[in-house]
This record gives sequence, structure tokens and C-alpha cells, in this order.
Amino acid sequence: MRAVEIIAKKRDGAALTSEEIAWLIAGYAAGDIADYQMSAWAMAVVLRGMDDRETADLTIAMARSGDMLDLHDIAPLTVDKHSTGGVGDKTTLLLAPLAAAVGLPVAKMSGRGLGFSGGTIDKLESIPGLRTGLSADEFRRAVREVGLVVAAQSGDLAPADKKLYALRDVTATVESIPLIAASVMSKKLAAGADCIVLDVKYGSGAFMHTLADARTLARAMVAIGSHAGRRVSAVLSSMQQPLGYAIGNALEVREAIGALRGGGPADLVELCMTLGAQLVQLARLRPDEESARALLRAALDSGAAWEKFTQMVAEQGGDLAYIEHPDRLPAAPVRSDLFAPRSGYVAAIDGQALGMACNALGGGRTRKEDRIDPRVGLVLAAKVGDQITQGAPLLTIHAASPEGAMRVAQHLQAAYRIADGAVTAPALVEEIVTA
Amino acid sequence: MRAVEIIAKKRDGAALTSEEIAWLIAGYAAGDIADYQMSAWAMAVVLRGMDDRETADLTIAMARSGDMLDLHDIAPLTVDKHSTGGVGDKTTLLLAPLAAAVGLPVAKMSGRGLGFSGGTIDKLESIPGLRTGLSADEFRRAVREVGLVVAAQSGDLAPADKKLYALRDVTATVESIPLIAASVMSKKLAAGADCIVLDVKYGSGAFMHTLADARTLARAMVAIGSHAGRRVSAVLSSMQQPLGYAIGNALEVREAIGALRGGGPADLVELCMTLGAQLVQLARLRPDEESARALLRAALDSGAAWEKFTQMVAEQGGDLAYIEHPDRLPAAPVRSDLFAPRSGYVAAIDGQALGMACNALGGGRTRKEDRIDPRVGLVLAAKVGDQITQGAPLLTIHAASPEGAMRVAQHLQAAYRIADGAVTAPALVEEIVTA
Repeated sequence: MRAVEIIAKKRDGAALTSEEIAWLIAGYAAGDIADYQMSAWAMAVVLRGMDDRETADLTIAMARSGDMLDLHDIAPLTVDKHSTGGVGDKTTLLLAPLAAAVGLPVAKMSGRGLGFSGGTIDKLESIPGLRTGLSADEFRRAVREVGLVVAAQSGDLAPADKKLYALRDVTATVESIPLIAASVMSKKLAAGADCIVLDVKYGSGAFMHTLADARTLARAMVAIGSHAGRRVSAVLSSMQQPLGYAIGNALEVREAIGALRGGGPADLVELCMTLGAQLVQLARLRPDEESARALLRAALDSGAAWEKFTQMVAEQGGDLAYIEHPDRLPAAPVRSDLFAPRSGYVAAIDGQALGMACNALGGGRTRKEDRIDPRVGLVLAAKVGDQITQGAPLLTIHAASPEGAMRVAQHLQAAYRIADGAVTAPALVEEIVTA
Repeated sequence: MRAVEIIAKKRDGAALTSEEIAWLIAGYAAGDIADYQMSAWAMAVVLRGMDDRETADLTIAMARSGDMLDLHDIAPLTVDKHSTGGVGDKTTLLLAPLAAAVGLPVAKMSGRGLGFSGGTIDKLESIPGLRTGLSADEFRRAVREVGLVVAAQSGDLAPADKKLYALRDVTATVESIPLIAASVMSKKLAAGADCIVLDVKYGSGAFMHTLADARTLARAMVAIGSHAGRRVSAVLSSMQQPLGYAIGNALEVREAIGALRGGGPADLVELCMTLGAQLVQLARLRPDEESARALLRAALDSGAAWEKFTQMVAEQGGDLAYIEHPDRLPAAPVRSDLFAPRSGYVAAIDGQALGMACNALGGGRTRKEDRIDPRVGLVLAAKVGDQITQGAPLLTIHAASPEGAMRVAQHLQAAYRIADGAVTAPALVEEIVTA
């Protein structure tokens, strides 16, 4: 095979064979195929597309370019969840223990935050003592002993995806549904879970701006699962505003603990129920949405999910005193309210702007090597649809210094749109895409 | 400006500004923009296209990446001709002296042959003593003294085109009319001629397979000329069969000399008249085709064109004895006829197959560094439309050895299609594209 012929074939709109895709990706990973050929191919894919079979072949080829985790000697079936990224998205902190509590082993590798979007690993690390950098043995032991682990990505998962993504980033070839789907799913396939639920966000602050795009991406990822012999479904959820009230690492852990202990914001709990019900059905623990939800609700109400969370924190070296008394978690010294400039109804909250503000406070990263401050962030006082009075707080800024709070306050005003008339809060979950 | 944004703009189908194109090409030539970005951009151009203004901007940017020849201190107006490449195409050998003979200075840089297509420089070098590697001073003196020079490309003409072409070749981004047009014209603009006639070939053996594609390419190149302030027209000519009868370096020189001295194949003379008439009109020596042809015909019939050719050969160090007595030009020791397998009419001759055979005889290059044998080649005995009898010669193979002749003879049979009924020879010139 010759790379230039494979590129030409895609340029002319033809579907590549499984062998051609496997050869191309293996050659690229090995350094035998040059970046300039791969970027020309990627541009041809952006403009000509790939069908479901090609996309699955690409995903599998990228997954196979590195380590393939296999936990079947420990657990006959494991589950995983992936979110396309949101502001204030602490779903994993609630969903993972919930799934484990109903008997679905969760062996999850998570990422760190970058840009306006936070990362579960950063959030977990605001619990003093908790380690996310686990060895393969530690990871496997946690799955076996607790049935739940959330660790930083280790090993060499889908290195071809990593290399290709870096190239796409500088060649304007990111915006392609098949390439995005393959990138996400290659890491999920390599991480080994049998059942995967995808939380595909859409909206101005999300990677997919429209519901239609989110649906296309979700379908592409679910189709990859079918081709690759995994059970996958996707939930399309609106990112019209942050999830829950807290944005910032320790603040979000505190909110998730509240939810695990029976409190917590309704939208966060509802989204976790929806995602969890998919996992329960994929794993064939329950046959329908209603019975799946009942199972999850019981695990939450009984404290079983909370119990799983504490077991996980203990297993990973976290100090339980901090989660038993979440007010002891790292807290920012400065708290400063942002006030509503006028009375009315909250019509929209720009999640991306809030994420950037949290970042500017020191709670996120602009570059990979930045250190983060777990204490800082924002806590909303009003969400979309809420009626507000002039001078009432819109949110509270948790900052390391008064200057830091002042700096972001100016930008935060612009993140709110306030309407005169009543506003209906957007639907949290728009639809569910199943195989 | 950022390369990734320019790539994205073209990916999304927008037209790039003159500044963006100039920045991209200058950056690529300087090594500031990576190959992998340029190939992604090229693929976006292949699939999204470029309008005439963008194509002209690209051409000008590539021309300006190196030396720009300016001969206006020597001649107020110079002419040039370019062919998209054909088998047996010795047009320059006849047309250049013809144009010079009517008072149009010809300052031509030509290429060497590669693949199945020959090159004027190789052909000229079969005249003993003749030098094509001229210094800038020698080149300018020849224009001043003789009004005619055909030299190998010297200096650093359009290096950005050279770099981009090499990249396109390995990234399946050759097949783009705007990119092909810009590549050809960038070298022509850099070579400095004021009036340029383009011989755009089409047919199975040509770069453009269909008349429609050839027309689109011709229009794109003529439009570039208009944008760049040059006078350009294009002749669309069929490459259904080789031009004239001879294929091979010394053989073609001998045929061209015959034409310059009043003999020579009708199709060769007719094509040169057509191309020359365009140059005469572009230079505004004569107002219409008819009077332009009359001027050229007079220069040919009077021996003025032949006189210019001898002056050029002398100026470039060639031994005039060889062109006065062309039978003294290097000749192959073996001549072997290929016979018609049956009676009928010649319906098609695969020029590409004949070019490859000449190459296999040692008359062309497979790799740039190959040495060529000026003596070898083919001389046709019948052309499309001719009636032939079984056992009559189709062509004569001129080879260095009997084995060489034998080897190519087997492949050559397949180059001919013989029909039972009468066949009309294809039109030589299909149409003329003017600004």
C-alpha cells in the first residue's frame, strides 16, 4: 500500500477498506507515514467524511496503537462514562459511586482540566491525601476490592490518537464528526469497559454547538461501539448553563458529596439518574428506564452510593475526615458576591465565560503545565428561569485574593442575560441515542 | 496571521485575501510554515477550489519567492510559449525561431524530459557543442544579439512552487486546476515574458484527460495572466497521437530542421502557425489571425526562421555542420521496423506508450539523474486515419542494440488500434482561449 494512494482515494470520496485504515494508522504511529501526508488525509476526511464502518475501523486502529486494558479476569463486565466536557460538570463524582453501588464495576480513567473545562482528576485531588496516579496493580486491586476506581490516565492508551489529535489541532482538521468520534472512542475502547454511556453536551459553551451536531456525533460514537463489540448509548444534554451551582475543584467535590448524601442540585442528580439508567440497561441489570431508575434511587437513598464513594476515597489514600466534614476541604479566603444589575428573570448563563473566570481565579489551566488552586471558583445563587431582584446576589466568587475576585467580577456581569418576562429553564436532557 | 486560521478559512470554502495568500507562501518558502500545514491547505484547495483572483495571487506569490527576470532593458517586449507536455512535441524548436524571425524576441527557459514526456533542452543538446546552461550574461546577450535563446532553467525561479509541487506529489494534491495553473504560470511570470502562448494538450496521454478539463485549465492560466499584467492566450490541442512522426531527441531535431527548411510534417507546422499567430496578435504585430499567419508563413518560406535557428545554435556554441547536414546528427546503430499485424485504418496511437518506449530505449529519464541517449527513438510510418496493409511498417525503432529494439517492440504493438473502416484523423486544434 502507498499513503498517497490512500489519500487520493479519500480525496475522491471513496470509502477506505479496513486494511487501508489499519495500515495508515499503524504506519503513522510507527513514524513511517509523514505528518504532511496524515494532515492531507485528515483534511480529505473533514471534507469528504467517513461512513460508520470506516470510523469504527479508524477507532479500533487507534485503540490498538497502544495498551488495551482488559479487566475481564477481575470483573466480567465493567462500565464507563464519558462527557464531551462541560462547566461545573461533577457528574462522575456522583455517577461512578452510584453505578458501583448497584453492582456495576467502574474502572475509570479521567483527565485533567484544560481551558474553560474542568477535569475530574483535578477535582478529586482537592481531597487531601487522595492519589489518582495509580499503578496498574493498584488500579486492578481497586476494581477488585471496591468495584470502583477513578484514576488519571496511565499507560500508553491510543498513542496514535494523541499524535493525530496534536496534528489536527494545528492543521484545521479538528472539526469532523467521524474524527472527533474516533478520537473519543479510541481511548474508551483502549480503557476496556464493556458498557459505556456518553454524555454529549451541546450549546454555545459546548464542543457541539447545535442539537443536530450533537446527535450526529452521538450516533457516530454509538455506531463505533456496535462495530467494536461494546454496548454504548449516548445522552444529549443541554449546556445552556453550568450543571449544579458550584464551579471549581473543591467546591464541586463539596456539591457532589451533598448530592451523594441526599441533598444536591436537582439537575445534577437528574442527569446522573439518566446516565446511570443507561448503564444499568446496557449491563442488563434492569430491562427498562423506570426499573433502572428505581434501582439507582434506592442505592442513593440507602446511602450505598455514599458508602462506595468513601470506600473509593479510602482505597486511593484520601483522608476520610475531609469528606465526612466537607467544610474542612480547602476553602478560598475571599468570598465576594456578584449582584444582579436589575430585576427580572435569568434568561441565559454563559457557562464558558464562568469556566474562564474560574480559570482566571487559578482554578484551571491555560497550559498543561499550570498548577491549579483547588480552593477557588464560583457558586451560583440563581440559575436560568429564576426570578431575581436588583442587588440580590447572582453568584459568589471564591478567590485567593480580593484583587483576583475584583478582576473576574467585571467579566462575569456579561455572562448573565436578564429578561423582563418569565423564562422557562431549558430541558436538561434532550434525547437518548441507543444502538 | 496564523496558518491554522487560513487553512480553516479555505476548508470552509471562503476565498482567501491577497494578504493571506502572500503571507502563507512567503512563510512556506521561508520554512516558517510546516509541510503538514501546507498539505492540509492544499487538500482544502483541491476540494474547495480557488477563484481566479486567489489563483493569480498564489501564482504571483510563488513567482516572487525567487528571482524575477526582467529583460525590459534589452527588449521592450519578449514572448514565451509553454506546453503542458506531449510526446514528440518539438514545437519549441520550430516556433521559437519563427517568432524571432518576425521580430518577437524569444527568451525561453526550458526543461528536461522526465517520464514519458521529452524536454526541449535534451533535444537541443543532441546538437554537438550546443550549450543550454547559460549564465545570466550569456542569456541576456543572446536575447540582445540574436533575439532568440532557449536555455535550461537557471537562477532560482519560483522556489516556493518547486517546494509546494514536491509536497503535492506525495500528498495526493496534484489534481487541482487552480494549483496546476498557478504552478505553471508562476515559472512563466518569473521568467519575465510579456506575451505568453500556452499549448494545453488533452487526451488520454495528456495531463488533462478531457477537453472540458483542458479548457478550464486554459481559462485559469489566461486569467492569471490578466491579473498579473501579462498577455496570455491558450491553444487547446489534441494529444490523440504524437505530433509529427519523430519521437526521440536527435530524431526530433532532424524533423524540426526539416520543417524549418520548408518540409516537415503538416500537423507540426500547423500547430506552430496557430501558436505563433497568437503570439503575433498578443504582441500586436498584426490585428487578426489571417494576417498573423501570413507574416509567419513568409518568415518560414523565406528562410528567415531557419536563419534565426542557425544563429541561435551558433550563439549557444553548437556546431553548424550538424544542422546544415542533419544526417550527421547522432544516429542509432540499429533500426528495426514494427509491422502492422493486419490491414485496416489506424484508429488510435497511444502517445504515452510510445513515449515510454522511447524512454525504455534510453531516450528519456525515469529518475532525474538518468543520462539519456540522444540517438534512440521512434519514427512513425503511419498516423491516425492512414490506411495500412498487413505487414507494412507502422514505425521504425531506432535503438542502441538489437535487444533494446526487441524489448520495446512487444509493447509497441499494443499502442496501436487498427479499425476495419475508414477513420477520420482528430482535429489538431480544438479551440483558442483568449483573455
